[in-house]
Amino acid sequence: MPGEFELIARYFTRPVPKAVLGVGDDCALLQTAPGMQLAISTDMLVAGRHFFADVDPFLLGHKCLAVNLSDLAACGARPLAFSLALALPLPQAEDAWLEPFAKGLFALADAHECELIGGDTTRGPLTICITVYGEVPADKAALPVPTQALLRSGAQAGDDVYVSGSLGDAALALLALQGRLTLPLDLLHAARERLEQPAPRVALGLALRGIASACADISDGLLGDLGHILARSHCGARVEVDQALPLLAARQVYAGGSAQFDSDMGARTALQCVLAGGDDYELVFTAPTAQRSALAALSSSLQLPLTRIATIEAAPGLRLVDATGQAVAQDFASFDHFAAALVLP
Amino acid sequence: MPGEFELIARYFTRPVPKAVLGVGDDCALLQTAPGMQLAISTDMLVAGRHFFADVDPFLLGHKCLAVNLSDLAACGARPLAFSLALALPLPQAEDAWLEPFAKGLFALADAHECELIGGDTTRGPLTICITVYGEVPADKAALPVPTQALLRSGAQAGDDVYVSGSLGDAALALLALQGRLTLPLDLLHAARERLEQPAPRVALGLALRGIASACADISDGLLGDLGHILARSHCGARVEVDQALPLLAARQVYAGGSAQFDSDMGARTALQCVLAGGDDYELVFTAPTAQRSALAALSSSLQLPLTRIATIEAAPGLRLVDATGQAVAQDFASFDHFAAALVLP
Repeated sequence: MPGEFELIARYFTRPVPKAVLGVGDDCALLQTAPGMQLAISTDMLVAGRHFFADVDPFLLGHKCLAVNLSDLAACGARPLAFSLALALPLPQAEDAWLEPFAKGLFALADAHECELIGGDTTRGPLTICITVYGEVPADKAALPVPTQALLRSGAQAGDDVYVSGSLGDAALALLALQGRLTLPLDLLHAARERLEQPAPRVALGLALRGIASACADISDGLLGDLGHILARSHCGARVEVDQALPLLAARQVYAGGSAQFDSDMGARTALQCVLAGGDDYELVFTAPTAQRSALAALSSSLQLPLTRIATIEAAPGLRLVDATGQAVAQDFASFDHFAAALVLP
Repeated sequence: MPGEFELIARYFTRPVPKAVLGVGDDCALLQTAPGMQLAISTDMLVAGRHFFADVDPFLLGHKCLAVNLSDLAACGARPLAFSLALALPLPQAEDAWLEPFAKGLFALADAHECELIGGDTTRGPLTICITVYGEVPADKAALPVPTQALLRSGAQAGDDVYVSGSLGDAALALLALQGRLTLPLDLLHAARERLEQPAPRVALGLALRGIASACADISDGLLGDLGHILARSHCGARVEVDQALPLLAARQVYAGGSAQFDSDMGARTALQCVLAGGDDYELVFTAPTAQRSALAALSSSLQLPLTRIATIEAAPGLRLVDATGQAVAQDFASFDHFAAALVLP
């Protein structure tokens, strides 16, 4: 078993073309270009809570950086660097775990030119804490925050609300892995890939600068994260629930497309997963209606669905309606409790 | 028990006069002044490993930020901001724990004008991960790293080696708290304060810019951290062990000043604590002999002892000698094993 310094030297010391100084001193050093700001986000992942302790370490390495890059994407920031703090119990402090973990981590890091500049390793219950740094242009004229970063606070009444990609599959996979429902193998495979290898929407976030009025990533569930935008923007939204289902695997469950599901139960489960499931790492964003054609072009160029699911309204609160305009039972909005039920045992 | 967002709002959301944007969005935003670099360091503290789970939360709040500010001090960086990630089990997720924890944290943060800009909270085994950001001037002329930051890599043969303050008391207090030795109450009190409320040497670090040739903070023990400087600077050092004992409580143990100690055992324990105990958060630094008078003046103005304990030599390795120049048994240098023995059960 490698000691702390040997472990850092072997797995976590790499060249840093962007940073002034990387791993190996008391501090790392970063210098942003003139007129740029540093966007910073931290996520801590705990075994048994955010992932199964026996998950494939390659996939875990990917995911723990992906959830952080997703926060940069939500701000429209270009990834620069990250710090990694690891608490490792014995089985994970071995080469057999560390090597694939580092591979998964750096495969995603390299794809986004995001370099490891420092961190900490210690013995302890398996916990991964990443702080990620991205670059975004300042904007002295922007009020109240002088930045070009996408914030949660800019939504205006009349704006459209969009989500990228598809929602609910990660939550569906988790329910299946917990034995709480059975998915056909092909659906399970697709849903599980979304749970274990989420793709942070970095390119989308960068492209949305100057288009979106507000943006957040969907980590706590669509209603919860849209709720953050509404709270920071002091407004409300009317969500057309049937529009809110840009699903992959979950769509088939919703539609009763699998013979293994009672269709009522399937529809309800799928709706819960898409509205409140969490762990999706798509972006939810608002934009003035004048941006519809720009967004259609962007969706096409990125080959990523951007689905209009709601309209921002001045009155605070989330109003869920079905295709006929009828109110949908509000218990989907209790995402906190549902999210708690999804937590790993 | 407060939920995550309520908890963040109640305890961890404060004004951020220095940052562009603080807690509440997907990312925080920091912008450094022109010509400045950001010094970044991360430390993760795990209950049962770095602190007793039942430690006074006010003291813990202080300490977990102090160990990070100590890294900024070692680089000569001025504290700007920090991110806080917390995994909390049930007893710690209650107001009765969070309120004093936040008080201890912010008392030290405010003293150093270091503002909380973001983070994460989750349920899990008690773990505290802080990433701290400081500001340091760039220096295009400096080679190989274009910075005015104090690095571990600048020591030169002939330089003096200094330590600030006193060493070994934190380790001595830990041994006492573990029941592995008994300290007189007044010594225990003094030593325990060093363990639980270390004072990061931020002012010293800032003052050492332009004076010190290399610097590190003493978190892993003097020999270990001096060893980092030697490794990065490709040189060695001769340590005069008797000079290496600028102790507070431990000095009395070393001198057999307490009737409760067999003096041989006391001397040996004290020497281990000062050379390899760790958790001291003093600075070890090197400086050309031409800086001796500047350092004497600095020690006086900061009212902080700066003790010359060693000389840098071209030949790699650490050579320990006593007052008569005789080699001291090298097993003190096995700081890794000793540090491991000091780890909480």
